[in-house]
Amino acid sequence: MALRPTWTSRSRTRGKILDAIRASRTISRVELAAATGLTGATISELVRELIDDGLVVEAGRGAPTGGKPRTLVQLDPRARYSVGVQMERNVCVIVIVDLAGRPVARTSFRGVASMPPDQALPMIASQVDALLAMAAVDRDRVLGAGLVSYGPQDRRAGVLLSPQPSEPWLEYPVAERLAQSLGLPVLLDNDAAAAAIGEYWMGAVDRRSTYGCIYMASGIGGGVVVAGDVYRGSSSNSVELGHMSIDVNGDPCPCGNVGCLENYAGPSALVRQAAAMPALAERLVPDPDSADFLTEFARIAAAADAGDPDARHLIERSARYLGAAAVTMTLLFDVDAIILAGPSFAKAGSVYQTVIQEEVDRRTAAWRTHPVRVAPSVNGPDAAAIGAAALVLQSELTHGRTQTGRGPGSHARPVAAVADD
Amino acid sequence: MALRPTWTSRSRTRGKILDAIRASRTISRVELAAATGLTGATISELVRELIDDGLVVEAGRGAPTGGKPRTLVQLDPRARYSVGVQMERNVCVIVIVDLAGRPVARTSFRGVASMPPDQALPMIASQVDALLAMAAVDRDRVLGAGLVSYGPQDRRAGVLLSPQPSEPWLEYPVAERLAQSLGLPVLLDNDAAAAAIGEYWMGAVDRRSTYGCIYMASGIGGGVVVAGDVYRGSSSNSVELGHMSIDVNGDPCPCGNVGCLENYAGPSALVRQAAAMPALAERLVPDPDSADFLTEFARIAAAADAGDPDARHLIERSARYLGAAAVTMTLLFDVDAIILAGPSFAKAGSVYQTVIQEEVDRRTAAWRTHPVRVAPSVNGPDAAAIGAAALVLQSELTHGRTQTGRGPGSHARPVAAVADD
Repeated sequence: MALRPTWTSRSRTRGKILDAIRASRTISRVELAAATGLTGATISELVRELIDDGLVVEAGRGAPTGGKPRTLVQLDPRARYSVGVQMERNVCVIVIVDLAGRPVARTSFRGVASMPPDQALPMIASQVDALLAMAAVDRDRVLGAGLVSYGPQDRRAGVLLSPQPSEPWLEYPVAERLAQSLGLPVLLDNDAAAAAIGEYWMGAVDRRSTYGCIYMASGIGGGVVVAGDVYRGSSSNSVELGHMSIDVNGDPCPCGNVGCLENYAGPSALVRQAAAMPALAERLVPDPDSADFLTEFARIAAAADAGDPDARHLIERSARYLGAAAVTMTLLFDVDAIILAGPSFAKAGSVYQTVIQEEVDRRTAAWRTHPVRVAPSVNGPDAAAIGAAALVLQSELTHGRTQTGRGPGSHARPVAAVADD
Repeated sequence: MALRPTWTSRSRTRGKILDAIRASRTISRVELAAATGLTGATISELVRELIDDGLVVEAGRGAPTGGKPRTLVQLDPRARYSVGVQMERNVCVIVIVDLAGRPVARTSFRGVASMPPDQALPMIASQVDALLAMAAVDRDRVLGAGLVSYGPQDRRAGVLLSPQPSEPWLEYPVAERLAQSLGLPVLLDNDAAAAAIGEYWMGAVDRRSTYGCIYMASGIGGGVVVAGDVYRGSSSNSVELGHMSIDVNGDPCPCGNVGCLENYAGPSALVRQAAAMPALAERLVPDPDSADFLTEFARIAAAADAGDPDARHLIERSARYLGAAAVTMTLLFDVDAIILAGPSFAKAGSVYQTVIQEEVDRRTAAWRTHPVRVAPSVNGPDAAAIGAAALVLQSELTHGRTQTGRGPGSHARPVAAVADD
């Protein structure tokens, strides 16, 4: 069963200070007081505690401002680490990130999706162990692991609510099982939500921003972040962009909806569309029935990026459909940026970015009171895995989940954890 | 210029207690401590203050529980009032509501939209004065007025960002001007957001619920509330449901988007559709070019409700389109209820409710981890005006905006106020 550790107002305040230090890279105590609205005494006391715990180090003196020179503090990026695990349709990506959110090790492998969870999860755990060993990361400094996937979830219970990738995964306690195998707390979350928060953790968006993320891997997902917190809704199953209808007269989807975005703009739809164009199909889609449609899609995207007009037509049309979703996201969530994340934006990212920006500019002109920037994720194709690790850092450190005084020796509990809202 | 009064953690705590008293109607201090997580001492002190300020009164003893009988407290609904003003396309609705959110007086009149704002706003103020006098409400007990309208706004500055109802309204300081005329603080907000929060204030939804509102008057708007707070996004111009595309291949709209919901499902679209059906047009749309399309629409809706098959076909189709929007709202915001509010749901509300519920059930089945209830607003056709008044109560009382000790005599400031987020 997933446990929900208690947290206190004090640790939340501590998290706020840590988040401000992280965001500004180096900062003085006086600037911290100004940035957080906390008193100098509170800042001094909690910065001292963060230094004692090894999370923060002093980093020289600030530029002279006439008075006493100010001592700067910064995160020690090697003080803590977290693990991000992304389960995609036919690949599993694992990253280890440091306290600054930077990946220090990465691996990916196939085959997990075809296994039942009671085999797959221990195998993932052994891959995490191997990666930690390879990166020479002290296990006592690892805060936990974030496991992200697609489809509906019960995030608090740590179970998937759809039979994906296969029937035995439905309602299997994935977070708890991985936590047992790893001996680390594990939180379960949505891959697109993770990709969205990773952007915040890396400082790529303003801390007060409301922004959206369109995540495209084998399918299409979405996430919205409001001032550093993932928009959750009533059960954390929000922003299901891939199954949003863009055509009220469109074809029915197995999900129950009609005209779902994913069936117009997603990789498998593009491969289907390409297979129906004989000249293009001959060149780029040798095996349209291949289960590995992502390889075929990557080939089309690369051809589009290299100037193949047929391939470009398909990718541009896919981008217009995604643009429609970006417009809806703008009108409903009032975002000021839309981040494009995930491996399926890797090959023709600039085409997607240009077209989606055009659609948003043209189609929301009457409503927007501010510009909406469309930009690629700073975390590249691994955005979901890196974001999964960032969710752990956020949950354990800045949302007040940290055990004061916890350091090497006080080992993480081998139970599933739950990110707070 | 809109002023932004400061508020303190203490007044926020006081607001939390007041909100808990409001929500439970009558409650003991012990139950209040349990409901809010505050200490008994804090509860006692702040309840005493609320009683001294006249907002709360003692209301007898609770049922015996074996120990000392507990004194119950409740709001004094007549302790404070607020004013709600809705500016619609061709009608202005004004309500006075008491502290429990119940309307105690109401008026509506036409003609305001055809005036420039420097004539219209003083006229609205004089109507408010007359209504307060008629209802014999002591002006010193009126906390302020909420002014709600449609289209993009700068909520903090209190100005409309579109030339609606006519060019002189664009960027006119409506909140400040009305505040000057009224001698009361005025906040500007979106009509659909107001209708949404009104539902919360009246206790019609669970306090922790995430729910959406589809608001239909001359146009279509939307609002989402998360645990009692309106979802705002980056500039408070969120949930613009009427100009969300439901058809990526649809006709262009003057707003810049294509296939906008309002052009399929809204009252003026229905009148246009009816005018193109000769048999129906002859019976129900004598003047299809009338500027007053809401009267024609109401006639069609009433005929549908009475069983006219042609009229019913049109209303059901409109409801299916709104159902598509409700599905998108469910998938993106993960709501657990969708409230139908506004005067255009008044005549055929049960047809709309039935069809929209069907669409949500059928088309989100694979994603929902909980039921989504579609229900009419408890505030009826005046939901936006009542909600506008509720926004004032919420801002002034439960969001910590109350001036401690303010009572009869300490008159409201004649400046525009701004609801907090």
